[in-house]
Amino acid sequence: MIGGGQLARMMIPAAVNLGIDIRVLAEQPGMSAELAASAVGDYHDLDTVAAFADTVDVITFDHEHVPQEILRALVARGVAVHPGPDALLYAQDKLLMRQRLTELGLPVPDWARVENPDELDAFLAEHGGRAVVKTARGGYDGKGVRVVAHKHEADDWFQALAEDANGGALLVEELVDFRRELAQVVARRPSGDIRSWPVVETVQRDGVCAEVVAPAPHSSGRLAEVAEQIARRVAEGIGVTGVLAVELFETTDDRLLINELAMRPHNSGHWSIDGSVTSQFEQHLRAVLDLPLGDTATREPWSIMVNVLGGPAQGSMSDRYAGAFAAHPSVKVHNYNKAPRPGRKIGHVTAVGADLDEVAYQARATAAFFQD
Amino acid sequence: MIGGGQLARMMIPAAVNLGIDIRVLAEQPGMSAELAASAVGDYHDLDTVAAFADTVDVITFDHEHVPQEILRALVARGVAVHPGPDALLYAQDKLLMRQRLTELGLPVPDWARVENPDELDAFLAEHGGRAVVKTARGGYDGKGVRVVAHKHEADDWFQALAEDANGGALLVEELVDFRRELAQVVARRPSGDIRSWPVVETVQRDGVCAEVVAPAPHSSGRLAEVAEQIARRVAEGIGVTGVLAVELFETTDDRLLINELAMRPHNSGHWSIDGSVTSQFEQHLRAVLDLPLGDTATREPWSIMVNVLGGPAQGSMSDRYAGAFAAHPSVKVHNYNKAPRPGRKIGHVTAVGADLDEVAYQARATAAFFQD
Repeated sequence: MIGGGQLARMMIPAAVNLGIDIRVLAEQPGMSAELAASAVGDYHDLDTVAAFADTVDVITFDHEHVPQEILRALVARGVAVHPGPDALLYAQDKLLMRQRLTELGLPVPDWARVENPDELDAFLAEHGGRAVVKTARGGYDGKGVRVVAHKHEADDWFQALAEDANGGALLVEELVDFRRELAQVVARRPSGDIRSWPVVETVQRDGVCAEVVAPAPHSSGRLAEVAEQIARRVAEGIGVTGVLAVELFETTDDRLLINELAMRPHNSGHWSIDGSVTSQFEQHLRAVLDLPLGDTATREPWSIMVNVLGGPAQGSMSDRYAGAFAAHPSVKVHNYNKAPRPGRKIGHVTAVGADLDEVAYQARATAAFFQD
Repeated sequence: MIGGGQLARMMIPAAVNLGIDIRVLAEQPGMSAELAASAVGDYHDLDTVAAFADTVDVITFDHEHVPQEILRALVARGVAVHPGPDALLYAQDKLLMRQRLTELGLPVPDWARVENPDELDAFLAEHGGRAVVKTARGGYDGKGVRVVAHKHEADDWFQALAEDANGGALLVEELVDFRRELAQVVARRPSGDIRSWPVVETVQRDGVCAEVVAPAPHSSGRLAEVAEQIARRVAEGIGVTGVLAVELFETTDDRLLINELAMRPHNSGHWSIDGSVTSQFEQHLRAVLDLPLGDTATREPWSIMVNVLGGPAQGSMSDRYAGAFAAHPSVKVHNYNKAPRPGRKIGHVTAVGADLDEVAYQARATAAFFQD
């Protein structure tokens, strides 16, 4: 696994259970997945990545930031890379993603490629004077995303592109009038089999996922079907291997539009560790090893995952265990061993059960122990 | 954790989830828990164990074989040792265990301490001419246990004791007329709180645990209560910290008699990884860190664990994954990364669900993929 963050960390239990020898190329010492870090180095450096690849059977990822030229060099050397560069491209570049999804006939917000303020102005004029501008590359958790009402509100980004030898453009999208955000997580193995978890509702705060409810409450069976069909068509159309998360808008006029794609285990699937027969981490391992996928049934009618964002102002998450465990003996606590810092995801908790209100209370009240 | 076997291995996922930095003193390189092995050395050597203890907050165990003098030296140095030597003594020496349980008024088979064939003969005469002889120390998985019908059938063991400078005696017990074997697993934290899982049925083959059904089928509520009370009284009477497994005989005249004790996560509790809200491994960590214990409710009405004993005649467990996973997508497979060898526990599988027959079929059929 390239990348030593919490997604690599959460892969460790699944690998240990299945007797899979997991190794991580971490960016630096002391990262969340340190236990499995067999190498430390820069994933932008081909020699580093290739030397690591020589020690494993399959390469997969904690994030989507490994450059295309590195990925393609690995494939040229005969390394099994899942997901492969042809798929990852669409998780790395939002303009290419929008273009490809549009070609595939999949539902996306109105969008355009804009190279200068005048092109942005034209889009604003056609979309009620407001729009969302995104950098094509490098954005996550609300970074690289900006709501604008004037053509000059993205000038800093246009300027940066003008100074970039690779050139490029920004993505502009209609400001979608949505009721809520959903996510559909699926896994696909190289030989084609796909399994999906139920569509979930994701609650964002300040552009960061705060809470996930699985399955998405108050959903018709038809909504769940459409969400699953969309994710399957993305996975097949793009040739994703491993876990794919499709973030969706449910619009106020009852359409589903694709917001973002992630080609790895995703925050919207963390509930599956405790709430599904097969977690997204075990499934990702099965998928990238081209093994038959596991059952994605829920263990209980409802699962709610609440992120621990920021963490305690003083001390660490585990300093709060005595109180949290005494009050909530059935809630599962996940601690990424990351230092608390405002807004940082340092852990999550998951409650499961038959009563949605009770499950929500349990999860939120437990998470509150870890945040001041 | 002292000892690098599969119990230490199965502790890793629980530790990773809770952000607990788990370190293992392994007997040799390449053991089952290698991923967490921060040291390799002999647990009979105080310097080795003390140096390891200096790197951790709490010492606990993969097995009960660490000598008393080492354990007591650690305690004298101020190391937190859970379970402590005063409790572990009764898992290390079956004669002392029988004596202590008898003092506590707990139900055990008729037993005696025998130092020579004539004493054995006297016990045989009083118990219908047949009895079980056990070495006080070192037995496990059927080793050090022998059914005898004649006073000279244990002469080799008497001879070994006579040659041992420490002297000693054998334990002889009545041959219990039992309907089935049960196990009651509980966990106790140093401050006294105890939580128990439901009593389970254990099926032995050739003296080795082959299968565990949780809860024990066809059990009255009263049986479950008595089993739990027995285990609580053992845990409190002996001062156990961490997980305690009490192996029980259910006699044909409906009594429960204590067979063996284990003071660590136990094969009869492996089902809890997939079948209980809190696994025995997470609970053991909570207990030895003196944190509030987790909910021990079952996730589904039935869980069945089947050991993979021996493994494939050729190749490894994972060579059979394609077939096993395709046929049984909901069964959880645990692979200890141990080389196959006749009779060796190299993994287990657990199925859970509402229908006992279906769960049994799923578990047994999956395990069969891994055994020729």
